[in-house]
Amino acid sequence: MTFINPNYLKLQESYLFADIKKKVDAYGAANPGADIISLGIGDVTLPLTPAVTAAMHKAVDEMGRGDSFRGYGPEQGYLFLREAVVRHEYRESGINIHEDEIFVSDGSKCDVGNIQEIFDAACRVAIADPVYPVYLESNIMAGRAGEPDAAGHFSNIIYMSSVAENGFFPAVPHERADLIYLCSPNNPTGAVFTRPQLAEWVEYAAKNGAVILYDSAYADYIRDPSIPRSIYEIPGAEEVAVEFRSFSKKAGFTGVRCAYTVVPRPLAASGPHGERVSLNRLWSRRQSTKFTGVPYIVQRGAEAVYSPDGQRETSALIDYYMENAAIILDGLKGAGFEAYGGENAPYIW
Amino acid sequence: MTFINPNYLKLQESYLFADIKKKVDAYGAANPGADIISLGIGDVTLPLTPAVTAAMHKAVDEMGRGDSFRGYGPEQGYLFLREAVVRHEYRESGINIHEDEIFVSDGSKCDVGNIQEIFDAACRVAIADPVYPVYLESNIMAGRAGEPDAAGHFSNIIYMSSVAENGFFPAVPHERADLIYLCSPNNPTGAVFTRPQLAEWVEYAAKNGAVILYDSAYADYIRDPSIPRSIYEIPGAEEVAVEFRSFSKKAGFTGVRCAYTVVPRPLAASGPHGERVSLNRLWSRRQSTKFTGVPYIVQRGAEAVYSPDGQRETSALIDYYMENAAIILDGLKGAGFEAYGGENAPYIW
Repeated sequence: MTFINPNYLKLQESYLFADIKKKVDAYGAANPGADIISLGIGDVTLPLTPAVTAAMHKAVDEMGRGDSFRGYGPEQGYLFLREAVVRHEYRESGINIHEDEIFVSDGSKCDVGNIQEIFDAACRVAIADPVYPVYLESNIMAGRAGEPDAAGHFSNIIYMSSVAENGFFPAVPHERADLIYLCSPNNPTGAVFTRPQLAEWVEYAAKNGAVILYDSAYADYIRDPSIPRSIYEIPGAEEVAVEFRSFSKKAGFTGVRCAYTVVPRPLAASGPHGERVSLNRLWSRRQSTKFTGVPYIVQRGAEAVYSPDGQRETSALIDYYMENAAIILDGLKGAGFEAYGGENAPYIW
Repeated sequence: MTFINPNYLKLQESYLFADIKKKVDAYGAANPGADIISLGIGDVTLPLTPAVTAAMHKAVDEMGRGDSFRGYGPEQGYLFLREAVVRHEYRESGINIHEDEIFVSDGSKCDVGNIQEIFDAACRVAIADPVYPVYLESNIMAGRAGEPDAAGHFSNIIYMSSVAENGFFPAVPHERADLIYLCSPNNPTGAVFTRPQLAEWVEYAAKNGAVILYDSAYADYIRDPSIPRSIYEIPGAEEVAVEFRSFSKKAGFTGVRCAYTVVPRPLAASGPHGERVSLNRLWSRRQSTKFTGVPYIVQRGAEAVYSPDGQRETSALIDYYMENAAIILDGLKGAGFEAYGGENAPYIW
């Protein structure tokens, strides 16, 4: 008799956004004339930019010719893309991240969902509340969450309230937390961490031997130059934090699928005998065993985001979404609603 | 103090094929004139066919225009591709598989690595030996394998010998097995299961309440019409088996990344109270939570494999690889080696 993973039965029946999509589709089918603006999942609406499609056409041609065809690529991503990421996302801002610390993937959702696999089942997990559902659900599936109460809160999860009353800043917990999921700019509140706030978290993690899982998929929407775009702007963060970044909202890649995760070489956690084990090595082992890399064509498209044309075009995309956010924020405030976000993030709360 | 998943320390230092690639690269760098034929990982060498690249160019254009751009797609894959798979891979052969039983993914490696997540940690795993390393390694990572002995064999794994002496046919085990990994055509031996052999396994699984995880990524290389290409050719298999299929070796997609997994609706396993739980529903929940679907451009390329031109071109690719296999097999036998495979599989053993 084969038994299922019983933790799956603790999940809601379906994934939040799959649920919303079904409802929107049903409404659209019942109301064929309706011009629906979906405010559910944070999807993009503008097409891929010319620099990206030109690079992808070129890559398709290469894949169709015997002298330039490429089969299996490196699981970690092609060096040309990892070099472009390092140069434009980190080194130009004075952050010392290296190519072998970058892991290209098919999406931050996959990476934030899978990263918990390399940690012990007994790790205590702390999650800002409200937040993107994958942090919690991937830990429910793995058995780290404990049991849900009547309100759907899980017994082993440390929920860190991030609401208007505390300026959307989750305070460091009094209890021991091993894995801390932070998201800035935040999905869904649109809040961002200031440099002192983020430094407080890095200090907490260093002092308590915790690991921060830092989701900054919306970093490009930060307008205020004093707000950190990467956790590695904080000294010492390379010893306590993994960072997740994506091309989805940066360059309209939600249907193209490309992201990357940074696991610095100095970052380690404890083995069963107290020895320090490199998380870069563990994540590399996980990815090379269970993942086969991102399509070559997609990686060439992502590389083109960093070309001069690509940077200009991408910047215009983000301006457009931020203009939309401003319109929504103004409209909501004008209608008398209390509303936040939309200034350094596309999200309104 | 954050602890790592201690099971990772039981793995070999690096993934087999990553290891081989490093050695081949190093040899190539040291011997720049060498014309290396790598017989390591089963990669393809011929470029994508014209039908596939034409479909991908069209899809890139669609993604570059506002009126045809697509953002997040369905996690399970676009219906156009699932319909093409059902029609050409199953219904045309009289196999009754439905569109909502197909899960499009970025590779069979990912799917065969991830499928174990939906099962209980205490499941007993049976694996043919020798076989593709991901079946074992994903279960080591999940803690199901137990401890390795001096020879590297794990205490909780049932190894099913598949060698020349038993015709490469793993006999059904005497012990209880919950999850059974079978691969036909086999990677690496090139052996295939006959219909009576496969029926024996389906009967074993039905009798013992076990689940067969059937990897038939090389189904298109089967030349003998009496050999089953899908496990669902065996009556009752839809109640005991998951099937993994890929475009990698069918259409040269190793660098493009597209595959699919079939989880039939009648397939169930036990919940903690003995209730039957649909594996289709669990896999759907897993994929919608931790995966975001395959690039639209890639799915259009995969769909084109089933167009009349695509089918003709793909068939020519497979003929070419099978001709290579025949040359290698003849060469080895001519040189006095005992060699198997190469008749219904690209592999030689």
